[in-house]
Amino acid sequence: MIIVKIGGGRSINLAGVIEDLAVLDEQYVIVHGANALRDKLAQDLGQPKQVLTSVKGYASVYSDEKLLDVMLMAYAGLRNKRIVELCQQHGINAVGLCGLDGKIVQGKRNNGIRVYQGKKLKIVRDFSGKPETVNVPLLQLLLDNGYVPVLTVPIIDEFNAAINTENDDVVRVLQQALEARTVINLIEAAGFLKNQDDAASLIKNIPAAELEAREQQVEGRMKRKILAFRKLFEQGASRVIIGDGRGAHPVRDALAGKGTVIE
Amino acid sequence: MIIVKIGGGRSINLAGVIEDLAVLDEQYVIVHGANALRDKLAQDLGQPKQVLTSVKGYASVYSDEKLLDVMLMAYAGLRNKRIVELCQQHGINAVGLCGLDGKIVQGKRNNGIRVYQGKKLKIVRDFSGKPETVNVPLLQLLLDNGYVPVLTVPIIDEFNAAINTENDDVVRVLQQALEARTVINLIEAAGFLKNQDDAASLIKNIPAAELEAREQQVEGRMKRKILAFRKLFEQGASRVIIGDGRGAHPVRDALAGKGTVIE
Repeated sequence: MIIVKIGGGRSINLAGVIEDLAVLDEQYVIVHGANALRDKLAQDLGQPKQVLTSVKGYASVYSDEKLLDVMLMAYAGLRNKRIVELCQQHGINAVGLCGLDGKIVQGKRNNGIRVYQGKKLKIVRDFSGKPETVNVPLLQLLLDNGYVPVLTVPIIDEFNAAINTENDDVVRVLQQALEARTVINLIEAAGFLKNQDDAASLIKNIPAAELEAREQQVEGRMKRKILAFRKLFEQGASRVIIGDGRGAHPVRDALAGKGTVIE
Repeated sequence: MIIVKIGGGRSINLAGVIEDLAVLDEQYVIVHGANALRDKLAQDLGQPKQVLTSVKGYASVYSDEKLLDVMLMAYAGLRNKRIVELCQQHGINAVGLCGLDGKIVQGKRNNGIRVYQGKKLKIVRDFSGKPETVNVPLLQLLLDNGYVPVLTVPIIDEFNAAINTENDDVVRVLQQALEARTVINLIEAAGFLKNQDDAASLIKNIPAAELEAREQQVEGRMKRKILAFRKLFEQGASRVIIGDGRGAHPVRDALAGKGTVIE
């Protein structure tokens, strides 16, 4: 079982990803983002996103009801269904779901994010949280009947409301629930770069044991990402590949060891 | 088996509909629209919809790729998932799907719509078509496992592309595939009105045999709707109820015989 996470950047080669998956022998589940699409849509609708940075340094999007509406449109609507369409065009019988559908990914709403507003400490509550459980019987029902689940946010919380969450956390609960050994994470870079502005600074291999130290060296979204990778190994993953989603064959390349292999 | 079609108007009481469905004893499938949402979104994005009227007098929306994107956002994204959320809040384990998912509703693309442009006859091609087949095994798989399918457009065509179609036609193929005897059609009116501007002109009963004559008396979308109803009876439906979707209990009222009962 492989979890294929497709990043939500503008220059991800979705057609190339799906083309590769169409000839993959192993079973897999797709999780995808749509952040570039969401940001553009929010901008076009005159409600640009607001980013909160917690006192611990983790960045997250302020997710009010309007942002959730935009996410439902961008992630669960446009991007999810265009990926399903691409799958169908390549002979993959995909079924696109967000976490609400059959409560396939359920979580717990955040109590609030502690942020500094100027010098004042404030607790901000919104529709965001962390995934906790996966409806494995539904996933298995689909997989056993030849359907490929294409999953995305939002997920459903303990009050049965739609909440935003990080797709990396969705990948984490899925990896655990499905006991997936391999996670492929397709992004808009050659892999994990030592220097973000220098594509030649690609780190080809990272021992899983080094992730914690690296987490301390970075900020914002990347900090959160590395934390999520680290948890995958704690849960039994044996290989996480951060691959370039922009190439002609993103999945084939990732499985051939291009990008950054963490193991 | 009941097919519950929820219209896409602004003033449909979605919470009331779902509340009623939560206590319904029979098995059902939901099909919903989102036309008001789509029109508003298209407007907000600066790409207002264009309506084509065929030489035969049937009106339809010009469905280019951009409109399909807007539909994926409004129908398959925002409206579909907010309905799923409402269902989950009322204890209905809903799974929201558009026709692309598992090819649950597949159709054939239109060859083109014959329209007059000024006095010139022109054939306009777009991403629209008619549904033809339903993936009954997938629907049954969900139903048998306690999930309620919440379906909407777009559907998938013979080239595996997303196409727009009338939800009334989706209801038609579903009714046939599932051999549903009852179809409930919830709209923004008390039912079928003799005079559209007079709520008191409600027609309480229409014999199915009279539908063809009525089809000749109306224009535009209503003409298409009556045609769709007529076909339901040709396929074995025994009762179509056009109910008021705006009341406190739209489904309960419809099943109690309020609105227009065609049988």
